[in-house]
Formats: sequence, structure tokens, C-alpha cells
Amino acid sequence: MYNFEFYNPTKLVFGKGSIAKLKELLPADAKIMVTYGGGSVKTNGVYEQVIEQLKGFDYIEFWGIEPNPKYETLIKAIEIGKKEKVTFLLAVGGGSVLDGTKFISAAIPYEGESWDLIKDNSKAVSTIPLASVMTLPATGSEMNNGAVISRLETEEKFAFFTPTSFPQFSILDPETTYSLPAFQVACGVIDTFVHTVEQYMTFPVEALLMDRWAEGILQTLKDISDTLMKEDKPDYETRSNYMLCATMALNGFIAMGVPQDWATHMIGHELTAFTGLTHGVTLAIVYPALLRVMKEEKMDKLLQYGARVWQITIGTPEERAEQTIMRTESFFNSLGIATHLSDYHVDRTVIDKIVERFKERKWKLGEKQNIDYHVVAKILDMAY
Amino acid sequence: MYNFEFYNPTKLVFGKGSIAKLKELLPADAKIMVTYGGGSVKTNGVYEQVIEQLKGFDYIEFWGIEPNPKYETLIKAIEIGKKEKVTFLLAVGGGSVLDGTKFISAAIPYEGESWDLIKDNSKAVSTIPLASVMTLPATGSEMNNGAVISRLETEEKFAFFTPTSFPQFSILDPETTYSLPAFQVACGVIDTFVHTVEQYMTFPVEALLMDRWAEGILQTLKDISDTLMKEDKPDYETRSNYMLCATMALNGFIAMGVPQDWATHMIGHELTAFTGLTHGVTLAIVYPALLRVMKEEKMDKLLQYGARVWQITIGTPEERAEQTIMRTESFFNSLGIATHLSDYHVDRTVIDKIVERFKERKWKLGEKQNIDYHVVAKILDMAY
Repeated sequence: MYNFEFYNPTKLVFGKGSIAKLKELLPADAKIMVTYGGGSVKTNGVYEQVIEQLKGFDYIEFWGIEPNPKYETLIKAIEIGKKEKVTFLLAVGGGSVLDGTKFISAAIPYEGESWDLIKDNSKAVSTIPLASVMTLPATGSEMNNGAVISRLETEEKFAFFTPTSFPQFSILDPETTYSLPAFQVACGVIDTFVHTVEQYMTFPVEALLMDRWAEGILQTLKDISDTLMKEDKPDYETRSNYMLCATMALNGFIAMGVPQDWATHMIGHELTAFTGLTHGVTLAIVYPALLRVMKEEKMDKLLQYGARVWQITIGTPEERAEQTIMRTESFFNSLGIATHLSDYHVDRTVIDKIVERFKERKWKLGEKQNIDYHVVAKILDMAY
Repeated sequence: MYNFEFYNPTKLVFGKGSIAKLKELLPADAKIMVTYGGGSVKTNGVYEQVIEQLKGFDYIEFWGIEPNPKYETLIKAIEIGKKEKVTFLLAVGGGSVLDGTKFISAAIPYEGESWDLIKDNSKAVSTIPLASVMTLPATGSEMNNGAVISRLETEEKFAFFTPTSFPQFSILDPETTYSLPAFQVACGVIDTFVHTVEQYMTFPVEALLMDRWAEGILQTLKDISDTLMKEDKPDYETRSNYMLCATMALNGFIAMGVPQDWATHMIGHELTAFTGLTHGVTLAIVYPALLRVMKEEKMDKLLQYGARVWQITIGTPEERAEQTIMRTESFFNSLGIATHLSDYHVDRTVIDKIVERFKERKWKLGEKQNIDYHVVAKILDMAY
């Protein structure tokens, strides 16, 4: 096990009806900016519940933070936030709204150009407190201090972190997910699944408990996925387990003392930047291909994962590894998500552009496993 | 799954050599009181490492917090703390030192009689910040806001909690456990094991992920116990997993949305109060007996636990349940701990005294399972 530091001060408020606790959780004397996405909260009842709680508070609203939140949109919120002297941010929506709000929280108190903070996260020395009402289980943003911000102009995605960007609290009511389209649920499951394997499918370091906990998330996703995708009407317990898995997959709880990878996310982010494909879809495309290309390097963990999550215990190591990769891919397919670039009619030239970007930036992904641009080229070729 | 709130702001600093980070973690301008147990830190190298880090800080030391920390000892520390205007507490030692220090932290700023706080925890409205260098993995006190305080005079043990009693940080270096006697390691494993089952072995509420995580701790304890107990020289990885399990078993991470029991601990605390038996020993005595007496009520979870932790899958439910209980008891025995009251030559009259106490206080333990004094009598009789 590696040495590690762990810290996560976010308060989770979880369960049916828990938006009713918002009033007690918000600071009484704050100037609040409530941030939203495109408006789905107006059709699923969340907006009414939130507004009911906000009675008597001093707040303004900012609408329109899009999926893969854009710098170009966020600077508008930042400008308003500075002008209105906002002191507290409440993100209502999915991971993109929350990611965008984390950036707003750092940029409002920053005196220089907001873009500086993206280029150099360490310049974000102060943040405005933020919190969330989370309605789309996927990114884990409700209980971590990270965000991903896109820039339209340059087709780039950037990671954004500060030590104080943890939400002060996050309200998670599984019933708010009932109105999500199946495609978004599927993408959320895949995002949660891949967050987990990025912290698990590397190489063994005798971190037994963390391995069991990562496998616990993967097993739960496997066990609930049929009900989750086939339900005529949503089942509360299934939604609860899904929502809890999404939060626990990226809040540091399974990251203690283990090596991490994040290659699938890095390649996936580039795919989204160049093609506009939904984040979860890009992960479903990249991950099986990455496992095939990296089979030798990841063999020990592949066999362990195959046995413990998919009960694959018969055959030579080579056979078991292959079966495990196939099982993973067919799991993504069973959620209704195709796993090859060609399924989405992506132009082959996109591969060259992405490889070029990895080459330019001299990226090496995956600790000890040196996933450089040559390997990225192989992965994308395999994924086509 | 039940509705829940989760909050845990303790920073964990984990791994070999991490006491060297103490200096950066301590507040520069504090008046620090460092609290210790009986002196074992002077023989295992921890004291030198801590003192080295404290150079340049304004600190005093308080020695002698005993196992099952006594109110009578703690009031001495409180008196000194008030007089010296202490503003920060650093507990160096095991769970008892830390538990005692949590009480000191609440009592120093309290103007009335310290005993008031034990009788009514809600009177502890203010606490002095505290932190720990934890050397004995067992109680989980390093990452929660609870403590157990004993009073010699009345042979009683009391739970003590406040919302702000979380350590600000806890340093966990698995090497500090190398000098622990095998008996203490065994008791720590049992304490960790029973903390876990108190949050797991109740009744099913479709909390799949929490079940997997609880089973993950139990599986890990099972997998490391042979090496842990038989090692000629301590193995770092085994100690790391042991230490991490102990912390994760009682920091709320496996408690999200699940019913809890705590009957074994409540009965065990009374046993310690009347007989002086070590906490871990009392749990090893009570738990198998409790499972036998409560077999019907806990049947669903017993079968699940038997299958997932001990691979007991053959036979009738009755047979599997019995086998699971036997396997649990023999696990405790394999650590070198006997599991019957008679093994410790405890007088049978102690049972009556404990039952009387449960009767007087009208205690009912275990949600939905109503473990009242009649049941406690059966359990202790079974445990004899």
C-alpha cells in the first residue's frame, strides 16, 4: 500500500425528501447564486422544491450551464457573481452544473483574468463556499474538489482542482433521478464504473481493503443494472444504490494508498472535445480497447477483477483475461451503449488529431505503465 | 436503504514515516497539551519522533491515560488544561488515549462541573481542536467523534459524543504497531470485526454497496489474520491493511443508510465495567452467544455473511447459520482469544448484576430486534 493523505469534508444528505432540509443547511445571511443547467429541473419537480426552500433567502439564479460546461458560459456567471457580490453558490443539477459552479466559486474572488485559474489551478487561493442539490448520479462531483471545464474556442477540456472546492454539503434524493432518460442513466453507470476501475485496474500493491471496496462498487453496478435499465417505473432502492455508487466512486474513499490510472478519462475527454460524444459514451469506447492493448501490463488485476466481479475462474490466464474484457464490453452494450468509434460514424482522422495532441503535450498516462502517444494510437485504433 | 446524513472532516495521514508530517499539521501559535497512555510510546520510538516534531512549539505533556480511560484521571488533565490555557490537544497512543482526549477537549472550555458533560453530551457546545498520532488500530477513534469514558467509583462506562469531536487530523504509521503484544493485536482485530458487524448483521434493507463494503472489511481481516498473528517479524503490508480496516470500520463509511445494532458493545462495556476484562475479549465472548440467541431475527443476514465471508453455501439455512456462528467463534479463537465467560473464571453473579442494570435502565438494544434485559440474560447465559 502506498502512503496517502485523505480528506473529504463534504456533508452528504441522502434520501427521499431530503431537499426539505435545504433551508437549514444554507447560511442565513448569504447572497446566494443558484446555478442550473438547461431547465430539466423545471419538469421533474426539483425546481419547485428548491424554490420553496429558498423563501426568505437573498438569491439570484443563473441558468444554462451546459453538459461539458463551457468557459464561455461560465464567465457570464462569474461577471454577475462579482457584480452582485455573491457569497454562496448552490448548484442544482448534474455533474456539469456542479463542475461549472466549482470554477465560478474560485473565479468570483479572483481579481485577474478567470482563464489564469484554468491554466494554473494553484492561483485559485480563495473560493466562495458552494453546495449542491445533485440530480444526475455520474460524476461524483457532489463529493470531491475536482471539475472538468471545456473551452469551445480551442476544442480543449481542462481539469480544475483546488483544496477548498469540496461542496459544503450535497443533497442527494434518488427520486430526483426518476425522470432521467435511459441514455443518461446508462452513461452515468459507465462513468461510475470507469471512475472505479481507474483506481483499481492498475497493478497489485497489497491494498486488500481498497480492492474489496472497488469491487463492491463494480459488483453493485452489475447487480442493479438490469432493474435500473429495464424498469417500467423507477425502483427507489435501485436508484439509491446507483446514486450512492456514483458518489462513492470518486470521493477518495477507494483511492487510499492505491495507484491510479485515468488514461481512459484523458483519452475520453479528447474524444468529447473533438467529436462532441457524451462523456460516458467515450469511456465505453475507450475502456475495452485500452484493456486489450494493455492486457499484459494489467494481467494480474484483470484476472482478479474477472474472478471477483464476473466469476470468471476457468481457463488459462490468457483466456480468462480475454473473457473478462469481453464481459466488460458486453456490460456496456447491455446498457444500450455501443463501444466502437465506427458505431458513431466518427471520422478516422480524429484519431490522428488526438494522437497528435498527446504527442505535443508529451503526456504519459498511467503510473508505471507509460501510456504514451504510441499506446494511445493503438488504443484508438482498437476502439475504431 | 434508509435516509442518512454523513459527515467526516478528519484528515488521515497514512503510511510509513508519516509522523514526520506532524510539524506542518500542528497550528503554529497554539498552546498544545500532548496526552499519552502509560509509556509504551517511549519504548517503540514514537515518543522520540513526536518530540522531534514538537521542537519550537509551546507544549506541555500529560501522562497516564489508562485503558478504558477513567473520569478520575481525566479531570486532572482538564484542570491542568484550564490552568495552562491549552488551545490544542494532541493524543499520542491508542484509542483510550484519544477517547480520553476527546472528553478533555470538551471539558476544558466548559465552565461547570466536567461530569455534567458525561451525563448530558449536549452541554458540550464547544471543544478545543484535537488531533492524534494513533498507534493501536482498534477503536476507530482516530476518525470519529465518539468516545467511551469509565467511572471507577460507580463501575460504569459512558458514551461521549459531540458534533465537533472529530480529530482535525490523525497520523497513522503502521510501523508504530510493530511492538504491540499479540494479545493487543488480537483484541484490535476483534474490536474492528465487531464494529463492522454491528453495522451489518442486522436485517436487509437493500443497501447493496454498504453490505459489500462491510463484507470487504470482514474478508480483509480474515485474509490477513494468519500473517498478522503468526509473523516472526511484522509485515508492513499486513499491518497497513489491519490499520486501515480499524479506521474504516468506525468512521461512518459503512454506516450509510443501514440499521445498526451495538448490542454486543453495550453488553461488552458492562462486562468490562464489572470484571475489568479487556474490551476486545468481552466482544469475543458476547458476539457468538448473541448470534446463537438471535439466530432467527438475524437469519437473512447470517446466511449472507456466511456465504460471502466464509463461503458457507451448502446445507439447510439452519445448518448454514450454525456453521457460520461456529466459524465466527473459531476465528476469534484462532487469534488466541477464548470466547466463554467461564474461560476467564468470571463469577456467575456478574450476569445477574448486568441483567439488573439493563432492567433498571429499561435499555432496548438493536433496532426492530428489541434486545431487552430478558434477551441479555439469555446471551450472557449462553456466553458463560
